[in-house]
Amino acid sequence: MKKFINQPDQVVRQALVGLAAAHPGLRVDVDQQIVVRADAPVAGKVGLVSGGGSGHEPMHGGFVGPGMLDAACAGEIFTSPVPDQILAATQAVDGGAGVVHVVKNYTGDVLNFQLAAELAADESIEVRTVLVDDDVAVEDSTWTAGRRGTGATMIVEKIAGALAAEGAGLDEVAAMGAAVNEASASFAVALAACTTPSAGKPGFTLGDDEMEVGVGIHGEPGRRRELIRPAHEIVAMALDAIRSAKPVAAGDHVIVLVNGLGGTPLIELYLLFGEVAGALSGAGVDIARSLVGTYVTSLDMVGMSITVTRATEEMLRLWDAPVSTPGLRWS
Amino acid sequence: MKKFINQPDQVVRQALVGLAAAHPGLRVDVDQQIVVRADAPVAGKVGLVSGGGSGHEPMHGGFVGPGMLDAACAGEIFTSPVPDQILAATQAVDGGAGVVHVVKNYTGDVLNFQLAAELAADESIEVRTVLVDDDVAVEDSTWTAGRRGTGATMIVEKIAGALAAEGAGLDEVAAMGAAVNEASASFAVALAACTTPSAGKPGFTLGDDEMEVGVGIHGEPGRRRELIRPAHEIVAMALDAIRSAKPVAAGDHVIVLVNGLGGTPLIELYLLFGEVAGALSGAGVDIARSLVGTYVTSLDMVGMSITVTRATEEMLRLWDAPVSTPGLRWS
Repeated sequence: MKKFINQPDQVVRQALVGLAAAHPGLRVDVDQQIVVRADAPVAGKVGLVSGGGSGHEPMHGGFVGPGMLDAACAGEIFTSPVPDQILAATQAVDGGAGVVHVVKNYTGDVLNFQLAAELAADESIEVRTVLVDDDVAVEDSTWTAGRRGTGATMIVEKIAGALAAEGAGLDEVAAMGAAVNEASASFAVALAACTTPSAGKPGFTLGDDEMEVGVGIHGEPGRRRELIRPAHEIVAMALDAIRSAKPVAAGDHVIVLVNGLGGTPLIELYLLFGEVAGALSGAGVDIARSLVGTYVTSLDMVGMSITVTRATEEMLRLWDAPVSTPGLRWS
Repeated sequence: MKKFINQPDQVVRQALVGLAAAHPGLRVDVDQQIVVRADAPVAGKVGLVSGGGSGHEPMHGGFVGPGMLDAACAGEIFTSPVPDQILAATQAVDGGAGVVHVVKNYTGDVLNFQLAAELAADESIEVRTVLVDDDVAVEDSTWTAGRRGTGATMIVEKIAGALAAEGAGLDEVAAMGAAVNEASASFAVALAACTTPSAGKPGFTLGDDEMEVGVGIHGEPGRRRELIRPAHEIVAMALDAIRSAKPVAAGDHVIVLVNGLGGTPLIELYLLFGEVAGALSGAGVDIARSLVGTYVTSLDMVGMSITVTRATEEMLRLWDAPVSTPGLRWS
């Protein structure tokens, strides 16, 4: 294993030290592994908290800031944060209007966020949970009952975060998050596995001409392993899976995310987006907004995911609202 | 070779198709491989044009937009753009106040931009050239006489671009670009080589425990090959090289870029930045601004570079000025 690290068991902690040094707009508790926007809690605003295992950067800590998350809890790599940590984040951002937890659908995350929500209720903080389960590749997987939560998480965080920033109430923000998830579907393909610092070797092995179709963001198996194909065929396959699960029709407006999993260069992501744009335009679907880059990752995995969100006018308006975080910024 | 592409000789062109589809604020000439801000030319404003071989995305096409570049010329992968292409870009952005060419110091780029500047002069467009040669790893290298141009290029483009946006004159913008280059030094380390689509195999081979110290952004050899070391030692070595070439002292204000070369995940870049911040703060140097991410790349190379720019108050003010490009945005 070759990585820019010191010791495998210090990676998350030392990356948080760097995050804190780089972004004075964040308050980083390195010991508790919590990232909070510096001006939290914002009185009267619904707080948004997310988190999960580390290794998916910039998600979630990089999405903390005005217009998106109020706090993120960083677990160890590919390991859920613990209830006390999530409770502390929830308390730190509670401005009296309640807190929404954005939770990716992995069994550990679901359980620990649920426990934290119960602990928060004991402290008289109302919590609503938005479960994200957008990955249509497989039903049930390593660490997951049901569909996995992947790329749509950042779209949920952006849009629900914008609504919270406008002063909407707890139920309204949670309902919008759920609606975005419901309107979203993702599909990922890997060309090479990632290596966790603790394991020191790739999580799986692909042949020189193979790809993992429907891979999860921790390297969970997908639908099948097959020979690599040209980009336009891979895109067609991913869009078929996405549109079978969540139909989008001519005239629909969508947000498209073409996302790198960590080890894939931007030139390939733009090439893939060109194929997605051609395919969807050809079907009469309007790509109203798009994002091409490396946002929801799996350490150094060579791969990409495509997320399509069928967006209402309200979702598009909230997508366009100002956001100022390390990982996503247009204000 | 496993990449998300269709045909090796269509990669640049098809990535530009995707860039155009993703960013309506850009005018992309796919045939000529030129990316221009949609509202160019801006009357009375000095135009900024850069370019070079593709494979360094988001540089340069991703840095086109208000506050930074007016146009970028994309060569084939790791191949200089041609003079006619550079001339066309120069003409497209000339608003009557002249055009600054930002050129990384590689022999082909230098020659072709010089020819284009002469052709532009024939068309009565005044051109000034800012040569970027910030990579202090080696003197002379594959494709280069003198030092190579790397990470500082984007800092030059940001700061000179901001000055041009304010309406400064041609000589002033060029002088600021040159001053930023003069104040900057970079150093890169690779853990694994990149693979160009045309070659289909890595440009060099490192052992399982080796790193290339002082690597160039096309995989050019560095100072030496040695056993991989902990991140803090790699950072210390890079900062020593940087500070030997361009001294920074206690009390100085610097802009620091910790940059991924394409295949290195963000969690490692933040960890590295934490080490840089610790080392410079320990030496009394003020990191006034910083940027951590994947900006100046070498396809899928696993590696990182550190750039330190000793900044004047004026440079910091221009760094903070609004910028709105696909790859860098804070307005």
